[in-house]
Amino acid sequence: MTVRTWTAALLVIGDEILSGRTQDRNVAQLASWLNVQGIRLAEVRIVPDRQAAIVEALDALRTRNDYCFTTGGIGPTHDDITVDAVAAALGVPVVVHPEAQAMLEAHYAGRGGVNEARLRMARVPEGATLIANSQSGAPGIRVGNLFILAGVPHIAAAMLDALTGTLEGGLPVLSATLGCWVGESEVAELLREAERSHAGVSIGSYPFFREGRVGANFVVRATEQPLLDACVEDLAARLVAAGYAVVTGGI
Amino acid sequence: MTVRTWTAALLVIGDEILSGRTQDRNVAQLASWLNVQGIRLAEVRIVPDRQAAIVEALDALRTRNDYCFTTGGIGPTHDDITVDAVAAALGVPVVVHPEAQAMLEAHYAGRGGVNEARLRMARVPEGATLIANSQSGAPGIRVGNLFILAGVPHIAAAMLDALTGTLEGGLPVLSATLGCWVGESEVAELLREAERSHAGVSIGSYPFFREGRVGANFVVRATEQPLLDACVEDLAARLVAAGYAVVTGGI
Repeated sequence: MTVRTWTAALLVIGDEILSGRTQDRNVAQLASWLNVQGIRLAEVRIVPDRQAAIVEALDALRTRNDYCFTTGGIGPTHDDITVDAVAAALGVPVVVHPEAQAMLEAHYAGRGGVNEARLRMARVPEGATLIANSQSGAPGIRVGNLFILAGVPHIAAAMLDALTGTLEGGLPVLSATLGCWVGESEVAELLREAERSHAGVSIGSYPFFREGRVGANFVVRATEQPLLDACVEDLAARLVAAGYAVVTGGI
Repeated sequence: MTVRTWTAALLVIGDEILSGRTQDRNVAQLASWLNVQGIRLAEVRIVPDRQAAIVEALDALRTRNDYCFTTGGIGPTHDDITVDAVAAALGVPVVVHPEAQAMLEAHYAGRGGVNEARLRMARVPEGATLIANSQSGAPGIRVGNLFILAGVPHIAAAMLDALTGTLEGGLPVLSATLGCWVGESEVAELLREAERSHAGVSIGSYPFFREGRVGANFVVRATEQPLLDACVEDLAARLVAAGYAVVTGGI
């Protein structure tokens, strides 16, 4: 059985990430969520709050992936330009979404009402639908294969919750980890041979240095459980035969 | 006085980042380091351990930025393909660097010597020079405006230490932060006007939700101290006039 691979890209938008002020959390968060949906995060770009940079990145990412996500730049302030940039990339106007406006009016009913800045968060590229946001008033936005999410990680997470199970995907990537107290350079050839012997399986080697000792975790990935299991068993046997103790699940 | 802006790009290479297994730390680390050198991190891409993806990204990033950094993929195992991909992007062969080989021989002298896997870490694109690594045996690599660093953050940090003060840059971006317990949508117009009134200054608004209250930090950025100070003073005055308490340094 051949199953096609579904891919997604992420465009992280924000001067605060590129200045080093804010540690991004959305790459890892989206990657993990996508995998459960059977979709592979294939590439990420991080660009500043500048329309030309956003449009250029969107043009590349949305055309060669099944899905394209953005995070950041959808708040009420002047530096929030994602919706305008997405509309420019798609060649559509920006319109006020009536349902989004109603959501904001409800959310801000006891908090001074909807002013001009808050109404900015009801603006969407024409043709868009909304992504529910259980955490704050402003919804996410879907337009075609583009998903516009908040930059604040727990709000982005709420929007992903709302999307769970709604995107078509393929098989999730399964993985298993074996750990060894060994320098990876001692077993590099062994790893290469184990990977070569199992088509459809990849092995990643991730070294570390802890408690004064070097070690490595070997992450085996495949989309089919029997392939994964066979490779893990083989790799463990090779490591043990070479004289190393293997920690199932990783160190 | 007009000072040109120096820019850098970062290419993060690694399946482990795109799978969500590993939280990237190098974007923020490099961004902060670059700023001290007077260089702006202008864009970031994250790609898998696949040569075509690496080459495509390098072609774009290295030609339109003064400097281009890579992290990841320079270890001894089969999934470490950065050097080969960089050489392919530059159209040069891969050669063993004698000085790197000597470093590895010294490092592994009491640890079983240099085997084939370890010797992989002495391979460089032809014409490259080395970047000292005080943390482990394998050096970083400089070739033209490309800087090839380790993916493990503390080793990348050691390589950046070795580069400190060696790259030509312009003025660092100065920043100052004002915090307010206010929803950013209440002061969006005020922020926009403050930014408009101060050419050469940008204001970023970063909302948060803590202890049951909404707040925001406003980060003012400029390359000249008097410009920065004038905008900060003006913004603080506008916020106070609107009835908000301002926390200098941010919340």
